[in-house]
Amino acid sequence: MSEQDAVRGEVQVTERSRVRRKRDRGRYDRATVHAILDDALIAHVAVVADGAPVVLPTTFARIGGAVYLHGARGNRLLRALAAGSDACIEVTLLDGIVFARSAFNHSMNYRSVVLHGTGSAVEAEDEKRRALDAVVERMAPGRSRQCRPPTPEELRATLVVRFPIEEASAKVRDGGAIDEPGDLDLDVWAGVLPLTLAAAPLAPDARLRDGTGVAPVPPWGRGSGAG
Amino acid sequence: MSEQDAVRGEVQVTERSRVRRKRDRGRYDRATVHAILDDALIAHVAVVADGAPVVLPTTFARIGGAVYLHGARGNRLLRALAAGSDACIEVTLLDGIVFARSAFNHSMNYRSVVLHGTGSAVEAEDEKRRALDAVVERMAPGRSRQCRPPTPEELRATLVVRFPIEEASAKVRDGGAIDEPGDLDLDVWAGVLPLTLAAAPLAPDARLRDGTGVAPVPPWGRGSGAG
Repeated sequence: MSEQDAVRGEVQVTERSRVRRKRDRGRYDRATVHAILDDALIAHVAVVADGAPVVLPTTFARIGGAVYLHGARGNRLLRALAAGSDACIEVTLLDGIVFARSAFNHSMNYRSVVLHGTGSAVEAEDEKRRALDAVVERMAPGRSRQCRPPTPEELRATLVVRFPIEEASAKVRDGGAIDEPGDLDLDVWAGVLPLTLAAAPLAPDARLRDGTGVAPVPPWGRGSGAG
Repeated sequence: MSEQDAVRGEVQVTERSRVRRKRDRGRYDRATVHAILDDALIAHVAVVADGAPVVLPTTFARIGGAVYLHGARGNRLLRALAAGSDACIEVTLLDGIVFARSAFNHSMNYRSVVLHGTGSAVEAEDEKRRALDAVVERMAPGRSRQCRPPTPEELRATLVVRFPIEEASAKVRDGGAIDEPGDLDLDVWAGVLPLTLAAAPLAPDARLRDGTGVAPVPPWGRGSGAG
């Protein structure tokens, strides 16, 4: 699938990828799935190891119709992915806390994506470089052209895994409290506390000389909705 | 284990719970594990379903030496947990982006916890109420006494699972960029962008009458480090 194709149409809906709870919150269009992935900095990657589930957090980046993960060559989770183990990758952006009049109807506003499938190791050097650039670009646009690129040794020490965005779903909750009709007259505050990932001022490295390089301008802390 | 005991000592370190990558970042004291869990609003819960891993996000709360998850009685993930399926629960707080002089040494500051083990359904009504109160209290301290408590029907419709914090590990990265000595003279900006979960002003429900109830005062948006 070309990168252009990847932003159109729907992902593959299977028995396990279909949203089961609160089905009206399920989304299967690629535009929504990709937008959520592109707003997140951390993915939660699950595999089965010795018969038991393991889930670990990791950085990632999306290029076209795939997400790319990377780590040290010896990373066991990545090695399992590279070997084609069944995996599940989940991303969640927390957008707010929903205070309802009853404890029961308290909720969260969020956008999440769940991917099922199998990954594969990226061996081609240009695709590896492109994937690692994309991870750095996620941290601050333009950054991959400002910092020193990977050496051949660094590239060899890095395992990059491609995971297709095919069998997938997104789930979105937004809006206010959904209270029982009988609760609306209670003297209880209800509403939403919006939450967002916010940036504090950049903290320069102690060894940085004045005027060195271009400070990154990350896409956070300006109400972008990333969180 | 009593709640008081739970904040002392170390968790159980096993072959699968030991931090493997960047071992110096591993933490096994209960104080650190509990503090990270208490700062997080979302847990990522993995089980094996039909031989493949599934990981989904959910709210949770810690009480003493256990975390409590809840959802609808029909929730398949919770039912698997309640039935004693092997599970892995992961929590990650993103504290910052670390910009190094090389692409290779870019990193994230974070605090994470990974729990392995098996859960069990909570059947006792008082423990169920306590667990659900704790979830609401995590959203805003005092909130469980302000809102309408669960009815017996709502309690029956809710499956609550207790998961012990026993076989566990925390992993923490903080501090600045770790650059190769040979990169320190490069004309590349390096440093940290601190990130935190920040709250926007409360958005009251449209049907809220003026002066109704007490607006919640959540512990976010004031640099608490939750994120």
